[in-house]
Amino acid sequence: MARNALPKQSEDFPSWYVEVVKRAGMAEHGLAKGTMVIKPHGYALWEAIQKALDDRFKATGHENVYFPLLFPEKLLSKEAEHVEGFAPQVAVVTHGGGEKLEEPLVIRPTSEAVIWSTYANWVQSYRDLPLLYNQWCNVLRWELRTRLFLRTSEFLWQEGHTAHASSPEAMEETLRMLEIYREVCEDVLAMPVNPGRKSPSERFPGAIETYTIEALMRDRRALQSATSHFLGQNFARAYDVEFLNRDGVLEYAWATSWGMSTRIIGGLIMVHGDDSGLRLPPKVAPVQVVIVPIYRSDDEAGAVLPVARTLSDTLAGDGIRSRVDDRDQHRPGFKFSEWELKGVPVRIEIGPRDVEAGQVVVVSRTSGTKRTLPAGEASSTMTSMLRNIQQELYDDALSFRDANTHDAHDYDELRAGLQAEGGFWVGAWCGDTACEQRVSQDTKATVRFLPLEPEDPGAACVVCGRPGVDKAAWARAY
Amino acid sequence: MARNALPKQSEDFPSWYVEVVKRAGMAEHGLAKGTMVIKPHGYALWEAIQKALDDRFKATGHENVYFPLLFPEKLLSKEAEHVEGFAPQVAVVTHGGGEKLEEPLVIRPTSEAVIWSTYANWVQSYRDLPLLYNQWCNVLRWELRTRLFLRTSEFLWQEGHTAHASSPEAMEETLRMLEIYREVCEDVLAMPVNPGRKSPSERFPGAIETYTIEALMRDRRALQSATSHFLGQNFARAYDVEFLNRDGVLEYAWATSWGMSTRIIGGLIMVHGDDSGLRLPPKVAPVQVVIVPIYRSDDEAGAVLPVARTLSDTLAGDGIRSRVDDRDQHRPGFKFSEWELKGVPVRIEIGPRDVEAGQVVVVSRTSGTKRTLPAGEASSTMTSMLRNIQQELYDDALSFRDANTHDAHDYDELRAGLQAEGGFWVGAWCGDTACEQRVSQDTKATVRFLPLEPEDPGAACVVCGRPGVDKAAWARAY
Repeated sequence: MARNALPKQSEDFPSWYVEVVKRAGMAEHGLAKGTMVIKPHGYALWEAIQKALDDRFKATGHENVYFPLLFPEKLLSKEAEHVEGFAPQVAVVTHGGGEKLEEPLVIRPTSEAVIWSTYANWVQSYRDLPLLYNQWCNVLRWELRTRLFLRTSEFLWQEGHTAHASSPEAMEETLRMLEIYREVCEDVLAMPVNPGRKSPSERFPGAIETYTIEALMRDRRALQSATSHFLGQNFARAYDVEFLNRDGVLEYAWATSWGMSTRIIGGLIMVHGDDSGLRLPPKVAPVQVVIVPIYRSDDEAGAVLPVARTLSDTLAGDGIRSRVDDRDQHRPGFKFSEWELKGVPVRIEIGPRDVEAGQVVVVSRTSGTKRTLPAGEASSTMTSMLRNIQQELYDDALSFRDANTHDAHDYDELRAGLQAEGGFWVGAWCGDTACEQRVSQDTKATVRFLPLEPEDPGAACVVCGRPGVDKAAWARAY
Repeated sequence: MARNALPKQSEDFPSWYVEVVKRAGMAEHGLAKGTMVIKPHGYALWEAIQKALDDRFKATGHENVYFPLLFPEKLLSKEAEHVEGFAPQVAVVTHGGGEKLEEPLVIRPTSEAVIWSTYANWVQSYRDLPLLYNQWCNVLRWELRTRLFLRTSEFLWQEGHTAHASSPEAMEETLRMLEIYREVCEDVLAMPVNPGRKSPSERFPGAIETYTIEALMRDRRALQSATSHFLGQNFARAYDVEFLNRDGVLEYAWATSWGMSTRIIGGLIMVHGDDSGLRLPPKVAPVQVVIVPIYRSDDEAGAVLPVARTLSDTLAGDGIRSRVDDRDQHRPGFKFSEWELKGVPVRIEIGPRDVEAGQVVVVSRTSGTKRTLPAGEASSTMTSMLRNIQQELYDDALSFRDANTHDAHDYDELRAGLQAEGGFWVGAWCGDTACEQRVSQDTKATVRFLPLEPEDPGAACVVCGRPGVDKAAWARAY
């Protein structure tokens, strides 16, 4: 049962991605156009990411809630920019229970409309604020050109929706959540990200300011990994959420929303993967250590398997997620490739001679180094080895990102860089959408982020030569 | 800010339910007909239930996956009974991305159709089996007459869908999952349940056998709390899931499916609640201990609040979920009622005199008893107190259930019992649907469960007098 090799990243990155997602058992296309089936190995990653986020949401005072999947189509249209952004993407339910509905319902593309309509009943006084709520759910935005995890009609995410009594408080929340996303990406997923603001044309429809964290994939394209929006009073005004402030004056509430989705799994694959397949950060790897017993006879199996299982139990006792791959129908070599493909950080091999010699062979997925260790030290070594692998993945991705982040001093350099090399190209920008559009037409790149605070670039706009007002980072993006 | 008292359970149980759900901040109706907003206090309960179930699913070898919300309408119709059962309840998406769809899509009312269509590609050999998958998601079954948690169009649940190489293995799985539901209900939610089989007319559409756990609410009506279905080869046949068995012969796979939904929260409310509101089992109570500081001046607050907070930290260190209610705008009496309404198992009161005397006052939500304890013992006492409350709730519910379970010896007794007293009425049944229908027409009660294994009742059918073939438990149900 030999497998064909994966396409090489350097030769055909998109095919590499498709094949890795498929062969590693992460996901596949669903039966209806635009839908996706998330398979166990992909979903287990999502669960680990959920836990990392949810723990931090709760530690910062947020509670989970659940708002309905369906709401009346007309609700969307109360916020002008919001409806313009989302109406073209919604799926519409026109029939239910065998009858045509009096009023069509939309499947949520995001939940600001239904949540702020409801907040109108929950908020009367400043004492009712803040509302710090989040929900884990599915949303749907119609897509015809789909890519597993990265772009599908239905996807899973969390969406936080908070209401505050003042603008500074809402802004503080917006940035607090951005920082949580950054922390989860960098410290848990080992993905370096650039936090920044979006340019006006890339803002969430209805937001005053959209903050983003942008990561760089191995093909030098950027991925928006999460966003946090300062919505000002736009939604409160549209959905009539007024409160009596401390001075007894009626005021519209201040809003934020923020989300991270299953898209991040696509990012994780493309930031860390190599030509052998996935490389999963130990902190979220569903299996951190796979133990492959090696034997050719029942006698050898009898000697090796109990040692493998005992070691797995010892690892479990140390809080390490391990699995013994005792499948009879596959040879060790097949298993090695399969677990490399699935990105398991550490492989332990145990054969009959190892059992006799009281040793195990330990292989790191990141460095590929093979070491022989006394069996008794295998477990104690694992914790530091997993920590090192986590760090190596981060360092690798950071070097790659830094090596592919350049300053653009003039338009020729910017254009040529974006077209030929890819990566982030940072340069002065005048703030005019026309310049963004020109870059986009010439190179398909967009402004991925601006500094968190506007930054005088001290130079002329690299596109048009007018005075620069901000420092923009351009890249082609997913 | 005095509150009106709750309606009394004995006078108007439905209003009591509606008011408790609303005032305890559990849920409210959504904007579109049939939808529900699950509020923080309700959702936190769901999270605790999810964790109890999910841990047990994983411990028994199941993995989580995610299948699409939408699938082509025609898929449903491949299994004849399945489509008959669900087609009248589906919501249909006819437009997406601004255009009319070529083929309408349905929102999943349950996922057998989409999952078994996909399993067709996953299963070729007995080596691919079993598939032990579960998903946490929302489903939608059109409803016009809604009741929060108990009956809404959209609800949240988990649905397990497993495929096996043999009938006994699938049956074993069906009963294993039923046992997990029983265990979670009884050991975690303190809800005694009757496990049993459904009569043919109450089976899941497409199932060979449906198993259920049935609980008794305080108004003597039954609630189906979870179901586990043995689907035989019906779905494999309909969706063409064949595998090469150990003998090299093509065979259809054997299926199970099983689910528990947010409906269980309605059950939890109606099994344990009393005229003061909810009574939450400590194992799932989002807040297990509320600490109410009592003070009339800033000086007193300065003395009391730090003690309250230190105690809360100590409790947290012991793994007890506690909260200090330090809201200034409410008096202690208001807080006491509110936390009783919300069902928090234990209240601790600390006033200035308590601080001086080095003591706290501890009140149990179940017994209502008030005890004064040395402050230093508060934390160590809590663990056993919470354990006792968990047990008291179970014992209360069990006594109530037992006191309201009767034998019916003839039809007059059955009819009168169901009409006048409610509760479970157990009697011999001939197995004929006509008798079920007669009881239902006369009393609105249905057969809630039959024994796990058919049981010769040794008596004539209480309805028609023909020979009994099974022992049926009737009740009016939600």
